[in-house]
Amino acid sequence: MNWYEDMGEYGDIAVSTRVRLARNLKAYPFPGRMSEQQEKELLDSISSFLTGTAGGSAFRFVNISDQDPITVGSMVEHHLISPELAIKRGKRGVVLSENNSVCIMINEEDHLRIQSIISGLNLKDCMITVSRLDDLLDGSFHYAWSDQLGYLTHCPTNLGTGLRASVMLHLPAHTETGDIRALVSNLGKLGFAVRGLYGEGSKAAGSLYQVSNQMTLGLSESETVDRLDEVVRNTIERERTLRKIISEKNPVYLEDRIWRAYGILSHCRRITGEEAMNLLSDLRTGVAMDLLKNIPLSELNKLIPDIQSNSICSTEGKPLSEPARDIKRAGLIRALLKKES
Amino acid sequence: MNWYEDMGEYGDIAVSTRVRLARNLKAYPFPGRMSEQQEKELLDSISSFLTGTAGGSAFRFVNISDQDPITVGSMVEHHLISPELAIKRGKRGVVLSENNSVCIMINEEDHLRIQSIISGLNLKDCMITVSRLDDLLDGSFHYAWSDQLGYLTHCPTNLGTGLRASVMLHLPAHTETGDIRALVSNLGKLGFAVRGLYGEGSKAAGSLYQVSNQMTLGLSESETVDRLDEVVRNTIERERTLRKIISEKNPVYLEDRIWRAYGILSHCRRITGEEAMNLLSDLRTGVAMDLLKNIPLSELNKLIPDIQSNSICSTEGKPLSEPARDIKRAGLIRALLKKES
Repeated sequence: MNWYEDMGEYGDIAVSTRVRLARNLKAYPFPGRMSEQQEKELLDSISSFLTGTAGGSAFRFVNISDQDPITVGSMVEHHLISPELAIKRGKRGVVLSENNSVCIMINEEDHLRIQSIISGLNLKDCMITVSRLDDLLDGSFHYAWSDQLGYLTHCPTNLGTGLRASVMLHLPAHTETGDIRALVSNLGKLGFAVRGLYGEGSKAAGSLYQVSNQMTLGLSESETVDRLDEVVRNTIERERTLRKIISEKNPVYLEDRIWRAYGILSHCRRITGEEAMNLLSDLRTGVAMDLLKNIPLSELNKLIPDIQSNSICSTEGKPLSEPARDIKRAGLIRALLKKES
Repeated sequence: MNWYEDMGEYGDIAVSTRVRLARNLKAYPFPGRMSEQQEKELLDSISSFLTGTAGGSAFRFVNISDQDPITVGSMVEHHLISPELAIKRGKRGVVLSENNSVCIMINEEDHLRIQSIISGLNLKDCMITVSRLDDLLDGSFHYAWSDQLGYLTHCPTNLGTGLRASVMLHLPAHTETGDIRALVSNLGKLGFAVRGLYGEGSKAAGSLYQVSNQMTLGLSESETVDRLDEVVRNTIERERTLRKIISEKNPVYLEDRIWRAYGILSHCRRITGEEAMNLLSDLRTGVAMDLLKNIPLSELNKLIPDIQSNSICSTEGKPLSEPARDIKRAGLIRALLKKES
């Protein structure tokens, strides 16, 4: 089972929680200034350490340089690695836990990106997981650290805690009412960014938004996480209120929209990624609001990465044209809805 | 059972065939010049004659002046009376056969409009029915007739045979490819009109078109009907060819469109008349092309009048707002598709 197949707390609106730490080793220059030999050395030593005695059989190593572009793209779509790790050159890789809930990227923008991802809203468990790994690695490798600045990172925006905590929220009512603009602006003033499904610069397909902290200096890890937690809980409450308002104002409008989404998704023979994301968003709303029964949200969570372009090709084991992907995508969605109906 | 619940020849494309004769009685001035007393006299004598010994229990009389607007509107939508009979004032009515396949309108634009309507393409049977009634009425009432002009009618466009024969065709491929424009123009040159679902001035909702003769002078009844029959058969062949071309060019496009129509129609909670007609057109194409099974075309034919605005209100027994009608319409369609699936 993968992390996204399980439902977490506030799962009706919070899809997943992610925490990552940016870390660099004292013994090496920053990535970009490393020689190929140094890159290889660091990659080997960290991956052997984690897949060896430190992590036991729980971890496996994937050498990104060895993978074909489809596999790498699919890993990005499944949030196992960052888009940056996928596109950069040089020796790089990722260590993954059995259920893909823990990923340690090696030689990304920083030497190490330690990440935990869990269903629903669960910042506490994510923090426990990354902190344990952080301690484990620090014990053997010694991080680049300054008493004045904290953890030293390649990009100044990560200096200090090196912590980025984010929660993926499904905010269709905010999108529908236009309240999303006010949310982005208000959270911005409080030091939080609101981004699309695949992070910086990506579109908010299917009304999915990532809310994450921007500050890594002047705030402790626990303060950062507590503030994010509060902001996210407020946003979830507001989303629930907005959904109630929309539903009470015109129940048939919402019901019709949700059932149409179900009707199209369970019968279409081809569908673009964008349309699928938008209709799945309606479906998700229907499940969350108990209008649609028998479709587990966890299955919808699992479906989202699976219907992205690279993942479809990866499942097929070969590159596919866009029209061919649209057909496969429709088939995947129909199969899920048929199974659950 | 009503006429439209049965499938006829060429039923995949020909929805129904209609023939009507315009007749006036020698003994009365044309409608519009009649006194109220004369209107009443004519209405009574014709309706008594047809529901009495002449027609036996097979016929029933509906006095349109006594009906509420919803019932009258629903009768128009079911093609039982013309829009003209519905909106004009004065004493007027219709005599209907048991299965509504025969309608004799009294005091419409002419004293009598003798009409037969049958599923599919079947001009011969329609002609036999109206001719038999024509002879029956002529024997007792004596028509206004001129040796030079033939049957005398209120409007000169009906002078001569007083015959209007029309076939309702489902032409989605002509619509899709734009060939419908050439068809309208070509048939016009040959003396045939192409009109929408509810005749002159109505829109071709759901790709349904009525093809009818324009000429009533200089051509015999059988020549008129034979020419229409030929033109219609050619149009049907062309429609089949166009469907084949579209389907072979991009089978997934058509399949997807048809299944989406089915998905929406079987799940929507509200739908406008226009969207319903368009999606039912796709559904009809799917059934005709054997992509959708278990949905009898006869049921779709029956559904089309039933989902029109007045018919919905008539079924409910009260006037309904547009949003309320949209909800009822969706319910009627879902119920049919559920029953058949």
